[in-house]
Amino acid sequence: MNRIITIGREFGSGGRELARNLANILGFAYYDREIIAEIAKRTSLSEKYIQNVAEHRPVIPFPIHTGRTFWAVLPDYGQNVQQEQHAIIRELAGKSDCVIVGRGADYILRDDKPFRIFVYSDAESKLKRCRENSSNDYEKGAEMSDKELAMRIEQINASRAEYYEFYTGQEWGGRANYDLCVNTARCDDLEKLARAVATLI
Amino acid sequence: MNRIITIGREFGSGGRELARNLANILGFAYYDREIIAEIAKRTSLSEKYIQNVAEHRPVIPFPIHTGRTFWAVLPDYGQNVQQEQHAIIRELAGKSDCVIVGRGADYILRDDKPFRIFVYSDAESKLKRCRENSSNDYEKGAEMSDKELAMRIEQINASRAEYYEFYTGQEWGGRANYDLCVNTARCDDLEKLARAVATLI
Repeated sequence: MNRIITIGREFGSGGRELARNLANILGFAYYDREIIAEIAKRTSLSEKYIQNVAEHRPVIPFPIHTGRTFWAVLPDYGQNVQQEQHAIIRELAGKSDCVIVGRGADYILRDDKPFRIFVYSDAESKLKRCRENSSNDYEKGAEMSDKELAMRIEQINASRAEYYEFYTGQEWGGRANYDLCVNTARCDDLEKLARAVATLI
Repeated sequence: MNRIITIGREFGSGGRELARNLANILGFAYYDREIIAEIAKRTSLSEKYIQNVAEHRPVIPFPIHTGRTFWAVLPDYGQNVQQEQHAIIRELAGKSDCVIVGRGADYILRDDKPFRIFVYSDAESKLKRCRENSSNDYEKGAEMSDKELAMRIEQINASRAEYYEFYTGQEWGGRANYDLCVNTARCDDLEKLARAVATLI
């Protein structure tokens, strides 16, 4: 059976960079946005649309007068994208040793016993990492104040948690669902961290 | 400033063994039950009494007829032991590089920025580790069925969580309070794990 590493990660924590380093060191295939591109090819949907569908749970909120919010599941919305995503993740895991970033791959591939890593950080470090290490102005929050960017980071992470919990029934970032959880506020040299982690695979 | 590693750990997860290995590899001092022995020396209390006081929050339950349980804090019970424990942990951390197991040392020494590790495992692995690696019949649960031992492990861990949360106001084993959380169900070679972790210190 192939060796599979899955990386769950808080936005801004450097999870993708750690994943790339790990794949390089171990000589494993690396899959992240490639999954979205492959779904686009197979479904003729745009990558942007898929990215959106693939990262949000399929619900809309109905605030009602009791003060509580109910969520209605819309059964067809994005279901094809989810099915394709599952199928592609399984295919990729069957091809070769690999590192897969996000997308609940730890849960989808649970029968293959992947090595499940969760990467997180504190608010200050996530903000700093976004500003300094992002590859584009959007992720850098170039037009935003620190407060605005911190809020956006928090929103993206809340959305990731919601997506993960909806599709897996597990707690996103809850230690029991991972083999290793790493705080990159302290372990901030991601190449060094990858070298250490690689010895455990 | 000295380099300090603190190890929080689920009972049965091998946290103490990881701590010993880390201390050996790094040449750091190692403190665990030594802290209890030192309190005994200074207070003339028995080690058994101190162990008990130092690992439980100072409360007794009052079940009342509404069906809820209220907890009453008994202000003097064990307070000396707690104060001594804090003082000793600070002294030890001031002496040399060290690894300190349990006792909320991560919180007590938070201003010294210790490297905070949490070690955990799944129920099956904890049971197996207790049976196979414990140094005495009590920890092995020699007289117990698997079900009884599993329940005892769970009780001990619930008690550790309660103690930690009472004294720190933080979640025991919640990722935000640690730099690294390791699941020894997967990373079960604790010497290899210690070698990997040592490179991050």
